[in-house]
Amino acid sequence: MTDPETETAAWGEAAQERLTGIGACSLQGAGVTRLPFTDEHRRANEVIAAWMHRAGMTVSLDAAGTLVGRFGGKGLTPERVLVLGSHQDSVRNGGRYDGIMGVALACLALEKARSDGFRPDFAVEVHAYADEEGVRFPTALLGPRALAGTFDPAVLEMQDRDGVKLRDALADFGGDPNGITALKRAPGQVVGYLETHIEQGPVLESAGLPVGVVTSICGIERNSATVSGRTGHAGTVPMQGRRDALVAAAGMITETDTRAQAIPDLRATIGTISVAPGAVNQIPETVTMSLEVRSPDDGTRRRFSAEIAEFSRGFATKRGCEAAFERTYEQPAQDCHPAFVERLQTASEEVQGRSLLLPSGATHDASAMADLCPVAMLFVRCRGGVSHVPEEYASAADMGVAVEVLSRFLRAA
Amino acid sequence: MTDPETETAAWGEAAQERLTGIGACSLQGAGVTRLPFTDEHRRANEVIAAWMHRAGMTVSLDAAGTLVGRFGGKGLTPERVLVLGSHQDSVRNGGRYDGIMGVALACLALEKARSDGFRPDFAVEVHAYADEEGVRFPTALLGPRALAGTFDPAVLEMQDRDGVKLRDALADFGGDPNGITALKRAPGQVVGYLETHIEQGPVLESAGLPVGVVTSICGIERNSATVSGRTGHAGTVPMQGRRDALVAAAGMITETDTRAQAIPDLRATIGTISVAPGAVNQIPETVTMSLEVRSPDDGTRRRFSAEIAEFSRGFATKRGCEAAFERTYEQPAQDCHPAFVERLQTASEEVQGRSLLLPSGATHDASAMADLCPVAMLFVRCRGGVSHVPEEYASAADMGVAVEVLSRFLRAA
Repeated sequence: MTDPETETAAWGEAAQERLTGIGACSLQGAGVTRLPFTDEHRRANEVIAAWMHRAGMTVSLDAAGTLVGRFGGKGLTPERVLVLGSHQDSVRNGGRYDGIMGVALACLALEKARSDGFRPDFAVEVHAYADEEGVRFPTALLGPRALAGTFDPAVLEMQDRDGVKLRDALADFGGDPNGITALKRAPGQVVGYLETHIEQGPVLESAGLPVGVVTSICGIERNSATVSGRTGHAGTVPMQGRRDALVAAAGMITETDTRAQAIPDLRATIGTISVAPGAVNQIPETVTMSLEVRSPDDGTRRRFSAEIAEFSRGFATKRGCEAAFERTYEQPAQDCHPAFVERLQTASEEVQGRSLLLPSGATHDASAMADLCPVAMLFVRCRGGVSHVPEEYASAADMGVAVEVLSRFLRAA
Repeated sequence: MTDPETETAAWGEAAQERLTGIGACSLQGAGVTRLPFTDEHRRANEVIAAWMHRAGMTVSLDAAGTLVGRFGGKGLTPERVLVLGSHQDSVRNGGRYDGIMGVALACLALEKARSDGFRPDFAVEVHAYADEEGVRFPTALLGPRALAGTFDPAVLEMQDRDGVKLRDALADFGGDPNGITALKRAPGQVVGYLETHIEQGPVLESAGLPVGVVTSICGIERNSATVSGRTGHAGTVPMQGRRDALVAAAGMITETDTRAQAIPDLRATIGTISVAPGAVNQIPETVTMSLEVRSPDDGTRRRFSAEIAEFSRGFATKRGCEAAFERTYEQPAQDCHPAFVERLQTASEEVQGRSLLLPSGATHDASAMADLCPVAMLFVRCRGGVSHVPEEYASAADMGVAVEVLSRFLRAA
């Protein structure tokens, strides 16, 4: 009999080997660039299909371009399905883990669970979605949205930068644009969706833990803030009485950061700023900036942004300026399913000694699947908290822990 | 005998009429657009020549394209010259006063002084320089630099946006590119330069005074400030431990403004800012911004920017970022000639009851003439403190006061 620790390590090394191998299905250049419905995607799907077969699954490509592996479902409740998965695509010059690791670990976890005697009376599917990053087309999540019935046919007309329509790219790839709406799963058929993903942040590294259990996928809102003042010659207008929009904006940026620091799990980011007229010798008249706020709690998020907007209007007024906010995007938070969270916690405690709960600040395929079924997510520690870069890295040991946790999750289902 | 107030008003109305008239020498569009060595410039010079003739001057175009009117100089010291002037050109869609008003009021002041019995034993010249704004070519001050001997022949090869070289534009206009260096005036020949200019700021309007006496032309320095932090996903990186370059920059902007407010006559402006990567969902990694500082005192200016740089480095470090400053441009302050300042003060007190001293935050032709001779400047109140826009405005009454002050200055010389 193999020592459990050695066995866990071996599964992690298998994961690392698989991810290194499939990382070669990429455009030339630093890191991994694998966009949906391309030759790289086709080659990656061949590799993933082999992983699925190895885990005992039958494999098919659905109308939306999702590679679907299916196991079991011949028991008492063949119509019930538990889905594990993530996306196969990457950003440009991204890493080897984001997305695809969730597919690789799902296959390995099923393989391991079966070797440990897992014989479910429901079906297990592993999904490799075509497109979560939205790099090639200005849309994403086609696969999970199709399953959830939230797919918007209008996106099929969107074009990539070479003028190729999503509809045609999908059809050439073997998908069926006209068959997507039929992919919608019946309510209750999918009992849950579990996604494993690299954390893309520093929390697990700081805590010294291989995996963490996601409590909630943060809601997101994006606002466009405009500060209007009055320009003038930088030499001839005295400091007193200036209505400098950038000076007003600076106070808003500082206050936003200070207040956000004080609220657990809230993230507020001003990622873009531009100033007009924008000349070295002109007092700024207008500043336009973005304010993105994320929180696992929608009320907390909305209260925060309302308070920032209120503070900003008052602060700008004191500076002789005006501040206006416009919400440009909003996506509510999605809680992970409490029973799944608890089961992942138990498995984490068994495998790594303790469990850690954290929110997901980023959107994932799980965000779209949440419209269909209860969801859960397991995060794997990433080195330096960095993602979407060639240096993105998860260790074999950590992935081994994740395979063990997932496999225990399956067996406990 | 005419009532003095009525007479002053009449001279102001003449000035307004002249400026309205010459404002028509402009490209189509809002406000005045009169670039050097163009048809508009040629037509304007015909008008200015008529003003000069009316004041009793002989008129010529010099090699650098400056229209030169000359009066007197047949007395005991014909070689001594007092120069009054400004520039004829405008920015694109500028106003009717910036530059050209200084030429118009100089002609009227000489005309008035002569009517009041002014018979100097020195020569008076009025100069209408071709180009102070630097809009057509990426250089400016050709005329006064030629007189001061600071003209750089390399600028003749500069091209406008149609690919026309300054050399060719000047030659076509009737100037003589090869004769520019010979324009240099002998040391001591020009006893002074007096420029009248619209204030381009709100100080005189606030004080309720038609004219003000410039003490000094502010020195200028421009710095490029770079703040380097660390980017990351706006959703996955918690607030604690972020190294957000824009948050660090915001503190620097606020402190720069606060400190500048406390220093008399100092102006500090951050007019440009850009952030990289510059995406709504990415923490800012790098912020690049300009810092322009102006002061009539070079030591005050240098101390201020050194202190801001020191503060910024410390503040950035506390935020996990780094701040670096690079000085990209520096021009020392130029004091106006104390005897001229005093004479303008006396005349101002006589005409408008009291005098007001103020620095010039902007550069003028006088800045270049300061390399040749003692300089002085008289500012005329502008409505709303605005300049370089079609709405730029000085009242006839205020210009009448300026004519009277200038004419008294001449007669006291």
